[in-house]
This record gives sequence, C-alpha cells and structure tokens, in this order.
Amino acid sequence: MERSKILGEIAKNVDLLSDFDSRKYQYIPLHRKPSPSVSSVREIMNLLRAILFPGFFGDGHTKSSLSAQYSIGVCLEQAYDLLYEQIINSLCFENSEESCCKEEAASVTVAFINRLPQIKYLLSTDVKAMLDGDPAAKSVSEIIFCYPAIRAIMHQRVAHELYNLHVPVLPRIITEMAHSDTGIDLHPGASIGEFFSIDHGTGVVVGQTAIIGNHVQLYQGVTLGAKSFTLDENGLPMDVPRHPIIEDHVTIYSNTSVLGRITIGKGSVIGGNIWLTHSVPPYSKVVQSKEKSSVSTE
Amino acid sequence: MERSKILGEIAKNVDLLSDFDSRKYQYIPLHRKPSPSVSSVREIMNLLRAILFPGFFGDGHTKSSLSAQYSIGVCLEQAYDLLYEQIINSLCFENSEESCCKEEAASVTVAFINRLPQIKYLLSTDVKAMLDGDPAAKSVSEIIFCYPAIRAIMHQRVAHELYNLHVPVLPRIITEMAHSDTGIDLHPGASIGEFFSIDHGTGVVVGQTAIIGNHVQLYQGVTLGAKSFTLDENGLPMDVPRHPIIEDHVTIYSNTSVLGRITIGKGSVIGGNIWLTHSVPPYSKVVQSKEKSSVSTE
Amino acid sequence: MERSKILGEIAKNVDLLSDFDSRKYQYIPLHRKPSPSVSSVREIMNLLRAILFPGFFGDGHTKSSLSAQYSIGVCLEQAYDLLYEQIINSLCFENSEESCCKEEAASVTVAFINRLPQIKYLLSTDVKAMLDGDPAAKSVSEIIFCYPAIRAIMHQRVAHELYNLHVPVLPRIITEMAHSDTGIDLHPGASIGEFFSIDHGTGVVVGQTAIIGNHVQLYQGVTLGAKSFTLDENGLPMDVPRHPIIEDHVTIYSNTSVLGRITIGKGSVIGGNIWLTHSVPPYSKVVQSKEKSSVSTE
Amino acid sequence: MERSKILGEIAKNVDLLSDFDSRKYQYIPLHRKPSPSVSSVREIMNLLRAILFPGFFGDGHTKSSLSAQYSIGVCLEQAYDLLYEQIINSLCFENSEESCCKEEAASVTVAFINRLPQIKYLLSTDVKAMLDGDPAAKSVSEIIFCYPAIRAIMHQRVAHELYNLHVPVLPRIITEMAHSDTGIDLHPGASIGEFFSIDHGTGVVVGQTAIIGNHVQLYQGVTLGAKSFTLDENGLPMDVPRHPIIEDHVTIYSNTSVLGRITIGKGSVIGGNIWLTHSVPPYSKVVQSKEKSSVSTE
Amino acid sequence: MERSKILGEIAKNVDLLSDFDSRKYQYIPLHRKPSPSVSSVREIMNLLRAILFPGFFGDGHTKSSLSAQYSIGVCLEQAYDLLYEQIINSLCFENSEESCCKEEAASVTVAFINRLPQIKYLLSTDVKAMLDGDPAAKSVSEIIFCYPAIRAIMHQRVAHELYNLHVPVLPRIITEMAHSDTGIDLHPGASIGEFFSIDHGTGVVVGQTAIIGNHVQLYQGVTLGAKSFTLDENGLPMDVPRHPIIEDHVTIYSNTSVLGRITIGKGSVIGGNIWLTHSVPPYSKVVQSKEKSSVSTE
Amino acid sequence: MERSKILGEIAKNVDLLSDFDSRKYQYIPLHRKPSPSVSSVREIMNLLRAILFPGFFGDGHTKSSLSAQYSIGVCLEQAYDLLYEQIINSLCFENSEESCCKEEAASVTVAFINRLPQIKYLLSTDVKAMLDGDPAAKSVSEIIFCYPAIRAIMHQRVAHELYNLHVPVLPRIITEMAHSDTGIDLHPGASIGEFFSIDHGTGVVVGQTAIIGNHVQLYQGVTLGAKSFTLDENGLPMDVPRHPIIEDHVTIYSNTSVLGRITIGKGSVIGGNIWLTHSVPPYSKVVQSKEKSSVSTE
Repeated sequence: MERSKILGEIAKNVDLLSDFDSRKYQYIPLHRKPSPSVSSVREIMNLLRAILFPGFFGDGHTKSSLSAQYSIGVCLEQAYDLLYEQIINSLCFENSEESCCKEEAASVTVAFINRLPQIKYLLSTDVKAMLDGDPAAKSVSEIIFCYPAIRAIMHQRVAHELYNLHVPVLPRIITEMAHSDTGIDLHPGASIGEFFSIDHGTGVVVGQTAIIGNHVQLYQGVTLGAKSFTLDENGLPMDVPRHPIIEDHVTIYSNTSVLGRITIGKGSVIGGNIWLTHSVPPYSKVVQSKEKSSVSTE
Repeated sequence: MERSKILGEIAKNVDLLSDFDSRKYQYIPLHRKPSPSVSSVREIMNLLRAILFPGFFGDGHTKSSLSAQYSIGVCLEQAYDLLYEQIINSLCFENSEESCCKEEAASVTVAFINRLPQIKYLLSTDVKAMLDGDPAAKSVSEIIFCYPAIRAIMHQRVAHELYNLHVPVLPRIITEMAHSDTGIDLHPGASIGEFFSIDHGTGVVVGQTAIIGNHVQLYQGVTLGAKSFTLDENGLPMDVPRHPIIEDHVTIYSNTSVLGRITIGKGSVIGGNIWLTHSVPPYSKVVQSKEKSSVSTE
Repeated sequence: MERSKILGEIAKNVDLLSDFDSRKYQYIPLHRKPSPSVSSVREIMNLLRAILFPGFFGDGHTKSSLSAQYSIGVCLEQAYDLLYEQIINSLCFENSEESCCKEEAASVTVAFINRLPQIKYLLSTDVKAMLDGDPAAKSVSEIIFCYPAIRAIMHQRVAHELYNLHVPVLPRIITEMAHSDTGIDLHPGASIGEFFSIDHGTGVVVGQTAIIGNHVQLYQGVTLGAKSFTLDENGLPMDVPRHPIIEDHVTIYSNTSVLGRITIGKGSVIGGNIWLTHSVPPYSKVVQSKEKSSVSTE
Repeated sequence: MERSKILGEIAKNVDLLSDFDSRKYQYIPLHRKPSPSVSSVREIMNLLRAILFPGFFGDGHTKSSLSAQYSIGVCLEQAYDLLYEQIINSLCFENSEESCCKEEAASVTVAFINRLPQIKYLLSTDVKAMLDGDPAAKSVSEIIFCYPAIRAIMHQRVAHELYNLHVPVLPRIITEMAHSDTGIDLHPGASIGEFFSIDHGTGVVVGQTAIIGNHVQLYQGVTLGAKSFTLDENGLPMDVPRHPIIEDHVTIYSNTSVLGRITIGKGSVIGGNIWLTHSVPPYSKVVQSKEKSSVSTE
Repeated sequence: MERSKILGEIAKNVDLLSDFDSRKYQYIPLHRKPSPSVSSVREIMNLLRAILFPGFFGDGHTKSSLSAQYSIGVCLEQAYDLLYEQIINSLCFENSEESCCKEEAASVTVAFINRLPQIKYLLSTDVKAMLDGDPAAKSVSEIIFCYPAIRAIMHQRVAHELYNLHVPVLPRIITEMAHSDTGIDLHPGASIGEFFSIDHGTGVVVGQTAIIGNHVQLYQGVTLGAKSFTLDENGLPMDVPRHPIIEDHVTIYSNTSVLGRITIGKGSVIGGNIWLTHSVPPYSKVVQSKEKSSVSTE
Repeated sequence: MERSKILGEIAKNVDLLSDFDSRKYQYIPLHRKPSPSVSSVREIMNLLRAILFPGFFGDGHTKSSLSAQYSIGVCLEQAYDLLYEQIINSLCFENSEESCCKEEAASVTVAFINRLPQIKYLLSTDVKAMLDGDPAAKSVSEIIFCYPAIRAIMHQRVAHELYNLHVPVLPRIITEMAHSDTGIDLHPGASIGEFFSIDHGTGVVVGQTAIIGNHVQLYQGVTLGAKSFTLDENGLPMDVPRHPIIEDHVTIYSNTSVLGRITIGKGSVIGGNIWLTHSVPPYSKVVQSKEKSSVSTE
C-alpha cells in the first residue's frame, strides 16, 4: 500500500477521533487539567516504603542507625516534595482554582507526614500478625520482603490517611497500584485496626465503608462487600454505609463473601466459601451447613 | 570452588540444553521465527490509550483541542507503524512467507485504525456505565485513571478487532497484558456490547465464544466459562461455541460461574456465589435457594 | 507555609521514625544485613527463561542451532554469576558468617544448574498438556508467549529446586514474582509432577506441602490448602504436612477448594465451586449434590 | 576495618563538609534556589532540533508534510512548556521573587518561539555554506547528521536569542552542552550572520562580544578572543566590547588567534597558525611572513 | 498569559515552520527517508569493542576462553544484524530503491565482518605502540581502558573498512562519535598503517586523503590537512588527493600543521607548533628556526 | 543471502577472533580480571559533586542546612561503598590476590574521604579565581553550573588524592572522563595549588610531573608537557620528572606550549601561541618577538 494512501487513512481517523464536540464520545471529554502522575505516585510509595521499613528497601546497603537517620531524612524530604505536588494536582483535578490549592496542599501534606509514625506502628503489628498466623513464614524479613499482603496493606494505610484528609483521586490511585500488583483490592475508605493479616490474598475485596477491628485475619478471595444499593432520586446508588463491620479477633476463610452493613461479632470464625448476609453474634462459628457435593466412582 | 570447575559444569549443561534434536524437549523446539515483541505491544497500547482518552494519558500536559489534534496525529502514525510491524511478525509467526505478509499486514492495519472511532465510542459508554453503577465513583476522570476494568476492557476491545481481522497471537498478548495487570481475563474472541461494566474485577474470566449484550454488569470472580468440551476424533477438545450468551441489562454478582452455551435472558439478575449451568428466561432473579451455612456460638 | 516550618515538621518525624529502640515499632527492626535484590532476581529469571525456551525470549533475533548455543552459553554463565551472588545474600540473610556462605553458595548454585535440563524437560511436558487441554490454544508458540500459567509454573519449578537445596527466602521471592504477574500462587515447597496445566489461573493457590502427580489440570480459583493448623506449645501453627495429595490424571474445575492432608485418587474429576475436605478414591467424580440456586421471574 | 569505624569516619567528614558557616568554603555556599535542570535543557534542545530539521531527528519515521506538521505541533508545545519552566528557574536563580518570574517567563518564552522561523532560516544557510565549503561533504543530509559544527551553531543561535531576551544562565548552559560535545566554544553573546561555517571545529573559541558577518568560515582551533581586559576600580576585568569584528566573506584557517576589538575587513583571508592583534583592511591576505622552521637531515 | 494566547502563538509558528515549500528554508528540506540511527550505531560500536578487546568491555565478568567464545559469538551475530539494518538505511539514504539495497547490504556486511580479524590485529599493534611511547603508561590494560586515542583509532579503523566498501554516511557517523568523545577527528577515508599512536589527542585532525605509514606517532593538536582546494567549474572544492603522506616511523609533536599533498619522509621527526607545507626527505628533523619569543622582566 | 551462509561467515570469524593463543593479537590478551566499572565511577563522581557543591547538583530540591546534612550523609556513605568496591577492582586489576586487596582498599578509601574537606576548600578557591578572572562570568552559581574547567579540576583534584594513595588505573579513568567531557587533559599526577583557573579550556594538557603553584591561570590550548624523554636500557621512555614547574601568580595565554622540566618564575605572564622550552625568572613577560605574519591586499 502506498504511504500516501495510509497517511490519508490516518488523517481521516485523526479528524474523527479529534471531534471533541461530537455527542458520540460524550462520556470521554478532552481532559484539560493537570492530573496526578502515576510514575510520581510510584516513586512516592517507594520512598515511603524505604521510610517505613528502614534498611529493607532502597539502595540495599547495610545500615547503621546513624546512616538510617540520614537516609530517612532525605527520603522524607523528597517524599514531602513529590507528594505536595501530587496533592496540588489532585485538588486541581476536581477544582478550578490552582492558587487556592497550594496552601491547602501544604497543610494536607504536613498533616499526612505527621501520621507516618502511626502508620509505621500499625504496619509493625501487621507483620507480627502474619508471622504468627502462617506456619510457612520463617522470619520477619521474609514477610516484609515477600508477602504481597504487606504491600497491599501499606498502600491502604497510606491511602486511608490521605482519604481522611479529603484528598481526591490520589488515594484510589495508590490502592489500585497495590491491587494490580497483588490482586488484593482494599478501598482507601475502609477503616482497619491493628494486627491485620491476609494470607495469599488474590481476589480479596474490602469495600469503602467497611470497618475492621484488631487482630482480624482474612484469606484469599474474601469479599467484604455491599449487598444492595440505596438508590437516590435519579435511580443511582448512594454513597452510604453499606459494607460489614468486622469486630476484633475475627478470622474469615477463603472465598467467603460477607455482604451488607452487618456485624460479625468479636472472636468469630467464618469458614470458607460461605455467603453471609446477616450479622452474627460474638464468638460465632459459621460453617457450611452440610456436604454440598456428591462423590461417585464410575 | 575453582572457576574452571564451575565453567566445566556450565559447559556440560550448555551442551545438554542445546541438544535440540533430543526427544526429551520435543515440545519446546528452538524457535527460529520473528516473534511479536511484548515491549512493542506495550508501547502500542500506550499510544492507543492516549488516542482513545485524549488528555488523560501521555505526556500529561494540559491540552487544547488544537494541540490534542497534533498529539493524536503523531500517536496514530506511530501506532500505525508499530502495529504494522507487529502484525507482520504475528503473520510470519504462523506462516513461512515473509513477503506475502507485508501487503496483508498493511490492509489489516488500515482496517484496524478505521475501527478506532467505534472503539472509542464503546469505551465512552463503558465509562458511563461504571460511573452510574458504583456509588464510590466520584467522576469520569477517576474512573478513567483508576479503574482496572477500564484498562481490561480497552485491551479486549482492541484485541477483539484484531481477532476479527484474523491476526494470530497478537490479540491474546494484548488481553494477557491486561489480565496480568488487573486479574481480569477477557478472551479476545468474546463479543461485548455497549455500556459494559466490571466492578473490582479480580478473577473475572470471559471465554472465547461468550456473547455479551448491552448494559451488562459483572462483579469480581465471575466466570463465563465452558461446561464441557466437545472432543474431536483424537480426543482433543474442539473449538466450538461453548460459552454463555448474556442478553442486555443483565447483572451477575461476585464469584458466580455461568457455564456452557446457555442463555441468560435480558434483564436478569444473577446473585453471588452461584453455579449456573442452564439457561434462564428474561427478567429472571437467580438467588441461592437457602442458607448454606450454619452458625454456632460456642 | 514557610519552608522552614515544613522542614521542622519533617525533622520531627525523622526523629520519631528513626527511634529504633522504641518498643512501638518492635516488629520492624532496622534491617542491617545484605538482602536479595528483587531486580537481580528478575534478571536471573529472564536469563533462565531465555535458556529454557530458546529463541522465544531474549533479543528476539532468528536463531540457528549454533547461535542458540552461543546464546545459551552466555546466558548460563551470567545466570550462574547473578544467582551465586543472590544465594550468598540469601544465606547471609539468615546467618551471620559471610565467609562460610561463599563455599556453600557455589555448591548450591552448581547443583541448581545441574537441574536445569530436568526443569526444561518438565516445562516441555507442561506446554504439551496446555496445548491438548485448551480448545482455544492454537500452537506451542502461543502457549509459551501468552499463557500466564507457563510463567507461574516455570517460576515454581525453578524455585522448587532452590527450596530443595535449602536456599532461604529466594524461592519465595521467585514464586511471589509470578504470583504478582499472574494471580497464581504456587508455593516453592509444593511437589509437582509432569504434564501439569492451569487454565486462566487467577486465584489459584497451592500450599507448601501439597503433592501433585502427573497429568493434573487445575482451573482458575482452585485452592489446594490447609484445613486447620496443628498448634505448637506456644499456640502458633506448626509447619507439618497439611495440604492435599493429588494423584495422577486428576482434573479440578474452577473455584473449588481442596483442603487438608487428604488424597484425591488418580483419575478423579472434581467439579467447580466445591468445598472438599475429605479424601476420595481413584476415578471419583465429585459434583455439587444438587441445584444450589432458585430462579424466579418477577 | 569494622563498619562502625568506617561509619565514624564518614560521620566526622559529614560534619566537616556540612559546616556551612565555615569561612573555609566561603566561595561555595549552600545553594538554596531552584536551578535550571541540565537534563531538561537537553530535552528542550532535542525537541528544537526535531523542529528545526524536520524528519532528520526524533522518532526517525518517514514523514509526510501532514505528519511533519502534527509532529512539529507536538514538539513545539512540549518545548514551550519545558522552556517556560527552565526560564522561571533561571530567572529565580538570580532573583528572589518567584511570583514575578512567572509572567516574565511567559513573555520571554513566547518571544523566543517567535524567533524560531528566523533561526531555522539561518541554520538553513549554514548547512549550505558547509556543503559548498568542504570537498568531503557529500549531501545536505550528511552535514545535518554528522557535522559537529551544525550542532554547535544550532545551540549558539538558540542561546543567542535567549541571551538577547536577558535570560540568565540558561544560554550558557546551552552553549556549554555543545562545547562539551564538539569542542567548539561559541559564547551566547556573539552575534553571527548568515552562511556561517566551521570545519572540524575542535578548539574553536568565539568570545562574548564578537561580531561575525555573513559567509564567514572558520577552521579548527581558531580563537576570536580578547587581547587584554579593562579593569574596574577593584582590579577586576570589565564586561566591555573586547572581541573582534569579522566582516562578510572572511575565511580564517586553523589554529589562528584573532584577539582584541579589531576589525577584519570584508573578503579577507587569514592563514593558519597566525597571532593577529591589529585590524586589517578589506580583502587582506594575511600569511606567515616567512618559514618558521628549519629542516635538517642527519 | 492565557493558555489560549500561548497556543495561538504556538500554532502560528507551527504553520511557519511547516511551510516546506517556502524558499526560505530551501537548504533544509523535509527529510523523508529512513536514516541511520545514532543509538543503534552506538550499540554496534559497543559490540565491536567487546569483540575486539575480549574481556575488557561488555558485562565485565571474568572470562575463560570458552565463555569468551560464547560471548564473541553472541556479540558478532547481534552486530551483524544491527549493522546490516544500518547499512540498508545508509544505502537507502542516498538511493531510492529499498529492495535493491538489501542484497547489497548483506554482501557488504559479510565483507565487513571478514575484515574484523585484521582490525583486531591492527589495534593490537596500536596498543603496543602507545605502551612503548608513553612513560606514564603502566600496562596494556590501562591503555585499553583509559586512553582516548584507542577509542578514536578503533572507530576510524572500523569506519575505514565501511568507507572502502562504499557505505555512505555511516563511516562518518562512526568517526564523529569518537571525535565528540575524544576531540580526535580522524576521517574514515584516511589510510593508517600499523603501530599508530596518538598522545593526549585533543585537536588532532587527519583529513580524508591522508596516508599514514607504520609506526607513526602524533601528539595533541596535530593537523594533517589540506592547504588549498582545487575548484571545479562551479567554483566548488573538488574531492582530490589533498592531504599529506606520512611515511613509516615519523613522529609529529603537538600543535603542528602539515598541509597539502606533501610527503614526510620516513624516520622524520617534526617538532611542535610548526606550520609545514612542503615535503621533507627521509630522516629529516624539522624544528623551529629560532626563538620566537622575547622575555622581559619588568 | 541465505541465513545459513551468513551464520557460516559469522562462525568462521568467531573462531579467528577467539584464537587467544595466536601470536597475531599478542598485545590484546583475553582479559580475565575484575576491572573498574566506568558507569560506577561516573556514579561516584556524581555523588562527590553533590557533596562538594551542596545544593547545586543531585536532586535539585531547595535545601536547608539540615536537609543538606542528611543528603551529604547519604551521598558520602554511598560514595564510600562504591569507591571501596572500585578500589578493590583497581588493586586486583594489577595484583593477583583478592583477599589482600580488601583490607588495603578499606584503608585507602577512608584515607580518601578524609581528604574531601581539603578538596572542597581547594575547589572553593578555584571558583573564586574563575569569577575574578572572567569578565563574562556573572555569579558563583553560573561558574559551578556551566564552566567546564570546574568539572575538569574537580576530577583532577579527586584523582590526584587517589594517585597519591597509589590506587592504580582509577585516577586515570577519572581524569579521562573529564577530558572527554571538556577537552581538558589534566594528568592525576600533576600537583596543583589553590586558586587555579582555566578559561575555555579545550586542548589544555597538563603532564604527569607538572607542579603548579597558587593563583595560576591557563587559557585554551596550553600544554605543560615534556620536551624529550629519558630512555631506559631498552630504549623506552622513563617515568622521571619531565614537565614544567609553574610558580605562583603565573598566567599563560592560549595555545602556548611550555615544555620540559623548566621553571616559570612567580608572577610571570606568558603570551599566547608561544613555544617555551627554557626557564624564565620571576616576573617575566614573554611575548612573541615580532610580527609573524605579513598582510597583503590584492
């Protein structure tokens, strides 16, 4: 085919695809605002990981306490600067005034870094919970290095603080980054207590308004989801509390779905592959009521 | 250990591993043909994403309509050239004559770019469907930026056009790229209507011969799979229609499997965690027949 | 906000986060040892992939047998050197004496490369099994290029040899790398026979002590897991055989969980969505005992 | 040596090197301002090169007029945005008020891009001059691709416009970039006419206040320098016109130095290896007065 | 400034700069042909360097003879493929028929690789000459690693073979790459004998038709240039022999210019800073005829 | 040409080029030792530059004293680790015992970092000298950012300390890196005092045994070289003092060569383009004795 013919075809489609007034593509407008940068967010998360797990990530050199302090200092200042910029972009993304974003972004970023020691504390308890809960786990280091759940929970705990500070878009980008890497989908809005653990993790979904207590353990494929939606006057679903409350010391085994604004009482154990849509009292054991399968030998 | 001893061990294994005539490795022959390049396919998908969602991806600068047109022009010509090359490689991958691939590749690539406006339209409807279906979604931009389902569906819609143009291998590489990133496995052969949405998405599988209508919504872990295979005279499974037909306005909740060449009638709602192997009429509601679990409090 | 005020906030948190003696972060100590490098492990796996599937991966040039031999020679020497270094790091990671690690690392690395021909043979059988088992598969090349299960199984087979050689941490890093890419979580400890195949794969979990025979086929979401843990005197779970034994020629369909140290007899077929916690004899067919859902049309 | 001892040595030197109040390092203060980014300047120059020599540089695809227009549009908008940012940094580098820099930077950047067509015209004449002047030159393309002088002159012509617009620092960064690549040191302040050519070029120096007419040709090692400096009241050299004026159609051969605010009359030819510190009238031929060397054969 | 105003300025200049029919830019046409890729040429030169200096460059691992052979095999096949592609581009660059380039490119590339052993031999003698000629040189390895002249000569020797094979453009790109790195400008056309050495090197220029014998040593700033040009009927310089012939065992000290088609007889020594435009017989010593400077002490 | 024929040609040349026992390539042996890594040396120099010019280079963020201290701490520890490794490689490069290198390398590296404050002091004086000596210089920052001489001198001062510590090869790699970037060739062995400046710089050569006092200023093309070599019993040049001694407050103008172990007395001014081979007393002025050129107007 002649290059000129090919270029004609290209030009024709450029015109069609650039028809921004067309009703045809009305739900994908030309995006004109500064946006959060995914590569910058990735860099922020790498810096935070180096700060929260000192000596494990980053340049990999053996660290003394002194050199760790130098390193945390450098990482935290870099993280501040990058995060400040992304928070401006996120605020502008939803608003129109760039100038008013800057002061707000500075306050929010400072508020966020003041939460880092608490995030580090919570992650410390999560590591302990995973070490105690998995007979295959050999050491704290192995968990921090290898366990996808640690990455997913770190992203959620960081995103949750930004979510509480009313930063738009950015928290979701952060949790989706971990979702893509681990198959674990923890919404930034979910409130999660200490000593949280997830084993294997692929397919876990925790919804926006879920509340999870301390010492809760989930296995792969567990959904803490909504059962039904409250619709508004336009027939669209409303953003109201609609996900479960899981109290302290609850374990939920693989592929179980817990749906709706129900409460799983403290100390309960929910077996695998269960579909649970009503609250259960503390110290419940929920198992499948009977054998669901038949075995035949031909 | 002496370096010379180590090199002797290496040389011994090089000889074993290079024994291409050995029956031992008969199913992994030495591959001698040009192959599709995964990094090039990734670049093509990034270019197409910048074309289909103008201003959202790419260099991230604020765009006017004019500069968007320049940008779409540059991206589309680059995408053409890269795709043309990959289509040649894909055609050669299965055939022996490189010369005859070139003219066919040009026709196929032109035919593909002529489908882009329609792909953009369909993605526009998908974005709208996800915005309306998820109470946690705040804006069109958030969906385009953060929702893994948009990436999975974009890859499938692109791959589906190449599949219909009989390009080998390449469509599957494109959908597997999204599968790896999102945990959503949509076969390029599946036919998918307008206003398609998937929430969370990890573990979704849609098979090669599935047919999905308009306004269909899936949740995480849904399988639209085959129930059993028709075997050929060699006892190998045949490539015949074997996946479900989902009619318009159907919703299927999490972790449900719909299997075999059955039809889910329009307007039906299929609950979560269900194993469905027979057709249901329009406007059906399928729920679990009774409580499957027993609760005990010790 | 003044830069000096921001820097004050940063400095305050650097001090809090560098308080390595605090009981607060007791489960995340300052890590002072050399650690395995994830980017180096990724490079090793790319080299091994080029060695095990000659001509498919790597630089992508058309290869003759002679040039393949040159290429395998170069890749294997590089892989040796990188792996040797990572094995030293892994051994030191758990021990304190660097010097004694070096000689052990050399022996272990040589032992590993002597297993590569066998790994290549096993992967060759896996490719064949996937070609025969999937009606959508068109060619050996398509499977090697596109199927995530091949990547997951290659990582597991490599990691399993290192696991058997008692290399700490590294095997788990290798399988988690594939877990992240494919959603398939195969523990390095699992023993897996010839002609193993997995279709789609997202959500598959195979536990540490599972034993899988020849010609076994799994579908997405299958768990071969533990049912309960044996606790030690501290109430912590013990590392004892606790995952299933799957005999030859068994097929297990999607989203089924097989739990505990039970045996699935040879030639059995286990249907989808089943929760199986007891052994079944050879040639069993396990299906759901009855329709679990009710259909209503309103 | 013990790691702790090494870390002690490091800490001691960190303290010495961080002693910013010490008189010892008084001429290298701690730099606290935003600075121009060398990597960003490099990107700007690559964009401008793609704009000024369309189709030669950049992605390397064969271009039609239409696609060249798309490409120039994209490159020019990117170049604008990057240059605007660097001009802000350069202005701030010397001043303290960031806010007042922004409006000025926008005006300056727009003024600069309005000079690009003229720069392109001048470079077009330079290419022609080099083609006509070098018997080894085979084609316009060879000159644009291979001749270091083209790169040096392009950087100077761009830097000269920014210099005229009173942008600090940035012009010098641009010419030093070319100086490093080519060994040709053209000061941004120098005024250079049409059809300028330099052959080989290593060691050429053209000073800040030099004025070069049209159709001037220089060879390697030529210096158009200052002879002496006018000192100010502090004994420091003053920034006054102190470099030569070279009129039209002058050729200066290799390793000749022309020094001071003298004038080389139009049409003159200055031989190689000459030290010239006085003006010469038009159409002069300056050659070495006699044989400077003696030959002996032993 | 409003973004819309800026975009207007950009658009105006895009139109001016895209006016490819304008006489204004007549010497810089829109370039529409495939061109040599500088980054690909750089990769080729790195591969050749690894082949010609085995074990010194490349991945840096300690090499045995066997692994060096694997490595040379891989590098040479890669170099062949990349060079073949660049030779096609270079031939097309000057001609219009792509098809006829391919067969010619294959022959030329094969002819080139058959010259590599001779190039390696010549470089081996150059290394020896530099080791013997420089009292600061400590070892063969130091010369190969550190001496810029080795890089410049390697590029020239490679480029010279391609020049003799009538490959356009590419040879000049190769020598200019070294010119930029070292300040040594050796034209690909120059014929250079065994045991050639250059000390320091910055500013050395060797012209297209120069002929250099064996055991010749040059210092920094030496020019072997043309004295005057023979003009053709259009007044343009002609490509005829116009650079010096340097016979065996000649040394030329720093900053001396030897100009015109003259002959420096074998065994001659030419002092520094000399301007030599006539032939000298064998075993000449050329020194400056008398003191050129006056010393005064004020 | 058939691929098989091409591969035959490649294989033939691989054999020729791998003939390591051949006398033909006797001066380029197969290199089997660990070698310094150029890319690692580049990283070391970037770290040292960030340490020596705090806030100017590196990540480019505005720095406070506190954050500069964090940053210097991190850079210095990284620089230590990388340099230690390169010093081991350099020592092994010349010796055979790796074990004995390690302890020596640690001592040498510690000794080097203890010299950094002095290097910083000296560079501080060099910056001051260049600011005072160049009427075109506007600020300290412009000199640090743009002046190639600063880079060349920084590399020499670092390399000189390593040279004095008897580290082989590495010092020369460091100065050649700057030579390539700036055209300024300062040998690591040269001893250089305070307040040293070089203007323009291309072509400057300072030899191994040169001694330069304080407040010395050089212009482009100046050579401080050897006049003749003392030959040893094998006729090879010996490494004895053979370059000039330049006393305090000397200025040497462009393209002048000062050769041999002569002394330029303090306060002297040496004009441009001079060939000087004898000592001159303090406060000499050396200029060209008379007009060397004749002007004719035809």
